[in-house]
Amino acid sequence: MARIGKLVVVGVGLIGGSFALALKEAGAVGRVTGVGRGGRNIRRALELKIIDAAGAFDRATFADADLALLAVPVGQMRVVMRAIAPLIGAKTVVTDAGSTKEDVIALARRELKGGLARFVPGHPIAGTEKSGAESAFAGLYRGRRVVLTPLAGTEPRALALVRSAWRRCGASVAELQAREHDRVLAAVSHLPHLLAYALVDQVARAKNAKQLFSFAAGGFRDFTRIAASHPEMWRDICLANRRALLAELARYGGELQRVRKMLERGDARALHALFSGARGARDRWLKDAQ
Amino acid sequence: MARIGKLVVVGVGLIGGSFALALKEAGAVGRVTGVGRGGRNIRRALELKIIDAAGAFDRATFADADLALLAVPVGQMRVVMRAIAPLIGAKTVVTDAGSTKEDVIALARRELKGGLARFVPGHPIAGTEKSGAESAFAGLYRGRRVVLTPLAGTEPRALALVRSAWRRCGASVAELQAREHDRVLAAVSHLPHLLAYALVDQVARAKNAKQLFSFAAGGFRDFTRIAASHPEMWRDICLANRRALLAELARYGGELQRVRKMLERGDARALHALFSGARGARDRWLKDAQ
Repeated sequence: MARIGKLVVVGVGLIGGSFALALKEAGAVGRVTGVGRGGRNIRRALELKIIDAAGAFDRATFADADLALLAVPVGQMRVVMRAIAPLIGAKTVVTDAGSTKEDVIALARRELKGGLARFVPGHPIAGTEKSGAESAFAGLYRGRRVVLTPLAGTEPRALALVRSAWRRCGASVAELQAREHDRVLAAVSHLPHLLAYALVDQVARAKNAKQLFSFAAGGFRDFTRIAASHPEMWRDICLANRRALLAELARYGGELQRVRKMLERGDARALHALFSGARGARDRWLKDAQ
Repeated sequence: MARIGKLVVVGVGLIGGSFALALKEAGAVGRVTGVGRGGRNIRRALELKIIDAAGAFDRATFADADLALLAVPVGQMRVVMRAIAPLIGAKTVVTDAGSTKEDVIALARRELKGGLARFVPGHPIAGTEKSGAESAFAGLYRGRRVVLTPLAGTEPRALALVRSAWRRCGASVAELQAREHDRVLAAVSHLPHLLAYALVDQVARAKNAKQLFSFAAGGFRDFTRIAASHPEMWRDICLANRRALLAELARYGGELQRVRKMLERGDARALHALFSGARGARDRWLKDAQ
């Protein structure tokens, strides 16, 4: 692969910071400059040697960058793209780590101007409920999937650079149409997050919330772990992908109707079939994923 | 506490086996006899020294027992109670570990006859998605809650014996009305299980199920961990507690309607409030639980 001489990471949190650390560990990057709105976070990223320098939205930071990763919440993407469009060099490849792709592509079409052909939309399917430079680690992407959703006009060189960068992080790279990506992620990621937040909200708003929580145990804790995720980030994701998410939510409403009817008619056989079918499907998934 | 000279465990799985191991470790029990429908499981329990002898539904097993724990799926409780009613001694205290209490109490009233006053309905809120004697371990109940739902006519001596046995296992014991117990558990345990099974079922039944699973990650895995639970046991629990569960399911349907409307009108503020409120409530719960 072409070695990345200079990498700029905009948003040095878990995602952006781990990308920088992984490339450094792989010897795949020369110099990393971090840009972020939180001064304290950037200082911490410097201390932790995640980045080598603190940059800004200026020519000095972006003009000679080989690759710029935009790892900010989807809601900030427009402002960031608008800011960097006149700053990036003629060879700078831009990629992002946003959890939704159709909306990011629409923004890129509007904001990136001449840089659009060197923009490679991406989504690393990895993360924890933690955030900030402090939580970054080099192994985050090892064995994980990264989806790239290139446009018809994306330069092959740009696509190849981003693909090989993620591979050097230990990830396996897949390509999907943006729309397909958004539908798939709505089903297996965005919907579960919404459901977990909703369940905690329901318990928290009950009159006897204190009592309810006092009897909640490990099952509740794991089911709701993703409700500890970053509220701002998830608000942005849900809104950015709301068409696909609403479709999945409607499907889930239908699923719950089916379950409700099984319960109402006391249909032991149907409940057992659903439960054991689900357990079997999940077991097979975990085996295949290994 | 009165030491338990002879304990009989009916159903030597994760729950019953761990109870026996914990009491042995605490030096709180003399001899443990196991009774179960699976010959291989009982032999394994003997090998693992969870039980000291294999018993049967006969006088020799039950007549001189100080305590009998019924740790079978709720759906088998009737048969087990009917079998032991004529076998237990005049001093034998009986308790259970069923996840629902109103239905178990109704069965006990019908089946236990003279033994009813020495029956202490109980529910240890602990477990993993694993089952069988193989999965039992002495520490399962340490720091966990056990709910007892005694009847008006329960002998104080019987209640005291069961309470102290669970304490010796390291659990903290609470008392609730059976109905209250069932409502609380519907909200924080039975509903989440149903939701997790339903989500996996929805993904598994999709036309592109293979693709969907291939992009599912850690959030999906944790959210659906409880869908790896024992299908027979959860079918029984859902049916036994279906009145309370249907009420919680209806409430959750309402909650999802609210969320759907927030998405439809693109209400960023309301979504953020719900997400951050849920995250805060969950954080406080985890802090309080420590």
